[in-house]
Amino acid sequence: MPEPLALAVDLGGTELRAAAVAPGGRILTEAGTPTDAMAGPERVIDQIVALLADARSRVPDLEILGLGIGAPGPLDPIAGISIAPPTLRGWHDVPLAAILRDRLGLPVRLENDANAAALGEWRYGAGRGLASIVFVTVSTGIGGGVVADGRILHGRRGLAAEIGHMTITESGGRCFCGAVGCFEAVASGSALGWSATKATSPGDGSRLRALSADGAVTARHVADAAREGDRQALALLAEEARWLGIGFTNLLHLYSPEAIVVGGGLSVALDLMAADIARTITERAMPAYRDVPVVAAGLGRHAGLVGAASLVLEAN
Amino acid sequence: MPEPLALAVDLGGTELRAAAVAPGGRILTEAGTPTDAMAGPERVIDQIVALLADARSRVPDLEILGLGIGAPGPLDPIAGISIAPPTLRGWHDVPLAAILRDRLGLPVRLENDANAAALGEWRYGAGRGLASIVFVTVSTGIGGGVVADGRILHGRRGLAAEIGHMTITESGGRCFCGAVGCFEAVASGSALGWSATKATSPGDGSRLRALSADGAVTARHVADAAREGDRQALALLAEEARWLGIGFTNLLHLYSPEAIVVGGGLSVALDLMAADIARTITERAMPAYRDVPVVAAGLGRHAGLVGAASLVLEAN
Repeated sequence: MPEPLALAVDLGGTELRAAAVAPGGRILTEAGTPTDAMAGPERVIDQIVALLADARSRVPDLEILGLGIGAPGPLDPIAGISIAPPTLRGWHDVPLAAILRDRLGLPVRLENDANAAALGEWRYGAGRGLASIVFVTVSTGIGGGVVADGRILHGRRGLAAEIGHMTITESGGRCFCGAVGCFEAVASGSALGWSATKATSPGDGSRLRALSADGAVTARHVADAAREGDRQALALLAEEARWLGIGFTNLLHLYSPEAIVVGGGLSVALDLMAADIARTITERAMPAYRDVPVVAAGLGRHAGLVGAASLVLEAN
Repeated sequence: MPEPLALAVDLGGTELRAAAVAPGGRILTEAGTPTDAMAGPERVIDQIVALLADARSRVPDLEILGLGIGAPGPLDPIAGISIAPPTLRGWHDVPLAAILRDRLGLPVRLENDANAAALGEWRYGAGRGLASIVFVTVSTGIGGGVVADGRILHGRRGLAAEIGHMTITESGGRCFCGAVGCFEAVASGSALGWSATKATSPGDGSRLRALSADGAVTARHVADAAREGDRQALALLAEEARWLGIGFTNLLHLYSPEAIVVGGGLSVALDLMAADIARTITERAMPAYRDVPVVAAGLGRHAGLVGAASLVLEAN
């Protein structure tokens, strides 16, 4: 007899994805659609129900245990309520889990998207088999989720692990949150792009501006140029790695994970930064924390979906 | 029939304390002795056994559930092993829980001292009834323990919540750990004392130097002078409060506690710093975290003892 499945939804401000997921995190069927983020919760919930009906129709004979959802925070994972996600217009205190439970006739679990991705990497990806990991996404911003002693760290209102907004410096520009010195403000992919744009100018003959066609330089351009051996890009990545190393050292001291798992767009350049990150950690971390590995995430954009599924598959 | 008790030990590098503790955290009998910290583990374990025999003799008719110990880290709370506490000479991988279990014929639980104090404040003190707290001690250094979602946050080797060594700035002197910008290096009581000593000089007529008899100024002198209304001391405390506010904001973002509970020597001046701490948190924390209270610890130096007892009394 086949094992029962979970349905999973990864609700983003841009894209909505749904899947049917087998035990072990194996995706059997998956579909996506642009999120109608400006249309309010009723419309988006209809989109979710339609995508899930489609997913169910493709696994008709299999028992479905329930639905796990990863959604943008802030949300209350216990009550299953989406509080006020900034990327979804009109969502205020939406009891998303209860609504979908009624419409689908299935148990529903809700988790914030960063925690869902952390769960995915922990249960099926780079953190498999460990008791404690910190999952960090480095892309436009910096976000994350913490698995501590075998379970997601929630804290009050599920708001723990707001990693991007820990202060690590007095330098750098003002963060969108209003403070100065946030990890995100100095170490995100956006911050790297800004630094690269500031360090170059249109028509300066740099490899970075060649790649950007003289427009703003992005983190991706820096990573690509660095991989070609461009010295300016390598220096920018080394500085990026130093900031990541400072932030990661804090995460080691504060959460004591068995691994730091790095995802997000900039993780494609983790190999180029690994030595500088390790050097910074060795310089700054207390001895007992220095041998904790910093590893690339293993599941890419599927981490959130399979992590959401795991809320149902691996009920604990 | 009377309720059963726990024995508790608070093993410090300077002082060794033992108690018999009733449910609810009520200390029935308590005794202490200077720790023979240079004499090695066998001698200190003899001291512990002697103190506990004395405590037991004073509650002769009561059932004793077990012993809880708070001891300096690093230690492994699961295995009950003291790894290498810097304040106790010759202690390397001492299986303290097993040794005392054999000698006393009781179940024994071991926890690091900061976590034991956090447990005490959580179960019987200022954090009672909350699901998540961060306990911060501000004295010579800065330490802490985190209760998250109803249990102590351990992480790998029980090393989570090394709060004092999160980087929050590039300024300030080098921390004893070797890094620059640690929370402890800029915000501990020692750091406040150094700032006050630097800001004054012997014979300058300042209230601070009057209180210190022209010697080095301590955090205690600053607190005392500030309470008298001395403007220099108040300015120093305001700067101290700003640093505490920056660090506390990080703790809010990272752990999302329902309260930050502040103990340690400098907590006697928390009332004088409360407004400046709150202002810094309001300036720097994201809105969802701003209304979390910062409160003074309620149990003073007893937090560690009753917290250690709670390891046995409130087994979970």
